[in-house]
Amino acid sequence: MKTTDLQTPALLVDADAFEHNLATMAKALPGPRLRPHVKAHKCTALARRQAAVGHRTFTCATIREMEGMAAAGLGEDLLLANEVLDMSRLGRLAARVTVAVDSEATIDAVVEGGVREVVIDVNVGLPRCGCMPDDAGRLADYARAKRLAVRGVMGYEGHVVGLDDRAARERLCEESMQLLLAAHAQVGGELVSAGGTGTYDCNRWATEIQAGSYALMDTAYGKLGLPFRRALSVLATVISVSPAYAVADCGLKSLGMDHGNPAMDDAQVWFCSDEHTTFAASGGVRVGDRVRVWPSHVDPTVAYHERMHVVRGDEVVETWAVDLRGW
Amino acid sequence: MKTTDLQTPALLVDADAFEHNLATMAKALPGPRLRPHVKAHKCTALARRQAAVGHRTFTCATIREMEGMAAAGLGEDLLLANEVLDMSRLGRLAARVTVAVDSEATIDAVVEGGVREVVIDVNVGLPRCGCMPDDAGRLADYARAKRLAVRGVMGYEGHVVGLDDRAARERLCEESMQLLLAAHAQVGGELVSAGGTGTYDCNRWATEIQAGSYALMDTAYGKLGLPFRRALSVLATVISVSPAYAVADCGLKSLGMDHGNPAMDDAQVWFCSDEHTTFAASGGVRVGDRVRVWPSHVDPTVAYHERMHVVRGDEVVETWAVDLRGW
Repeated sequence: MKTTDLQTPALLVDADAFEHNLATMAKALPGPRLRPHVKAHKCTALARRQAAVGHRTFTCATIREMEGMAAAGLGEDLLLANEVLDMSRLGRLAARVTVAVDSEATIDAVVEGGVREVVIDVNVGLPRCGCMPDDAGRLADYARAKRLAVRGVMGYEGHVVGLDDRAARERLCEESMQLLLAAHAQVGGELVSAGGTGTYDCNRWATEIQAGSYALMDTAYGKLGLPFRRALSVLATVISVSPAYAVADCGLKSLGMDHGNPAMDDAQVWFCSDEHTTFAASGGVRVGDRVRVWPSHVDPTVAYHERMHVVRGDEVVETWAVDLRGW
Repeated sequence: MKTTDLQTPALLVDADAFEHNLATMAKALPGPRLRPHVKAHKCTALARRQAAVGHRTFTCATIREMEGMAAAGLGEDLLLANEVLDMSRLGRLAARVTVAVDSEATIDAVVEGGVREVVIDVNVGLPRCGCMPDDAGRLADYARAKRLAVRGVMGYEGHVVGLDDRAARERLCEESMQLLLAAHAQVGGELVSAGGTGTYDCNRWATEIQAGSYALMDTAYGKLGLPFRRALSVLATVISVSPAYAVADCGLKSLGMDHGNPAMDDAQVWFCSDEHTTFAASGGVRVGDRVRVWPSHVDPTVAYHERMHVVRGDEVVETWAVDLRGW
């Protein structure tokens, strides 16, 4: 099948860029040094490729992702790097399940749901989940008193991973990880889980990195000068052409917009509507032309699509279900 | 079932607000004066309620929406208010299908796909699809020469519908509609299709209004002082509480973000991550509390969800599939 046979909008994965990204990461962080985050692609077929290059431990953000990974036979070591209160579905999984906890309430939920292993989630500077570092030891004691296995700590430096300035990224990453190591000293366990695509090569303190975006990339991470290539695009059809601009048939329902407008080659994106992207092309463009639109944020983009097509040039070599959507 | 039994995040429709919205619109624009836009809810169960109050003509934005509406028995008069080049799926539908065209190429596609009826899409000020008003007559002639039935014109004043200032909204709506009426004078036909929720009561020139958001509403339209109530929220669970803020388990993958952050009652939203909303609550909030998050833009929010739950207070009275997603 050719890309010209695809109904648009369609999510495309450039096979060469994707394979380059996986190989680059596997070399930098081999085996369990990377715990790929599946939230960035929500696709067990893609996760299987990550496993094939040596990454068989995975990070998830939702119960559905955990269930799907277990059902796909990728449940060797799954970390739900998020707090959950209704743990009943997780307790039933045929997989090794570890869950992040940051309070007595979330530890109680783990016990009640029949999950046995946790990491203490520590706030390392991002105002989101995670206990204060000083609280981590107390929570670990509480969890162990409830007969849970505490595997270590996690702390996501999400306020750092997207910083353009590499020196700032390195400095703030170190500051964050000092907080996490201090917590780890109180908690113990083999895991210090942290990091993302933006800090995968400067976070030297974590035992494992939770990067996900590196596999497909987006224009936001593309600005950081990382060795990963943009692999994810939305294929769209030009449906209307005016003297000053043209319109492609992808929009707010096929693109995550929290990082702003997508990008296009040789064209300036003006704005997106539900099913349209209005753009000014520098060259001539005609109704019926196919264009590639580059998302600014991979995660919420993928979550809009039922499938992604792996392409080599204009050849569709494989189609993967985005099978981990929903909750 | 109670809302407390729902896994979060979950999309909720407040039954009273929804019924108020439908009744208010049905009174203002009875029967075919409104052609509800299904892109705002992507739900045939909801469309069936619109039909029950007298609106049996519908507007769609995608082929999938057209197919789903036809399959649901709601295909009495479906307008695809968008340009499409591959019309083959539409030509097969057991429904009355009318498609917007704005160029020879899109007219040729209609003919090739076996669709018989069109409206000429006219640019009335929004830089998106639509021919220049002066071109509409020529395109209508071209379509009729190809033996298509030209039912009239459409022109969406999308640059006007969201303006806060009602006087500006009225003035610019009139300017837009003068362009559309000039085109209609060249084109003929019974339809002058235009408008949205923001201009439903000031667009006196269109024969039918394509509003969709009125049924569920969002915080953006909520600022305009319209008589519609907010009916759509995302139910979320508080999963983490810190002294200065708390975190709920809905985020970028359950909320359309192009209109900015969602809103919460008695709380200030700080930011959204993939599966989190960090907020500062003015009162006390505890882990496990349920909160309602109000989307800023209904359309791309609904498109993330598999279903919506209709609620009266805390009682779930019905669950509707969001069955028109995808393309």
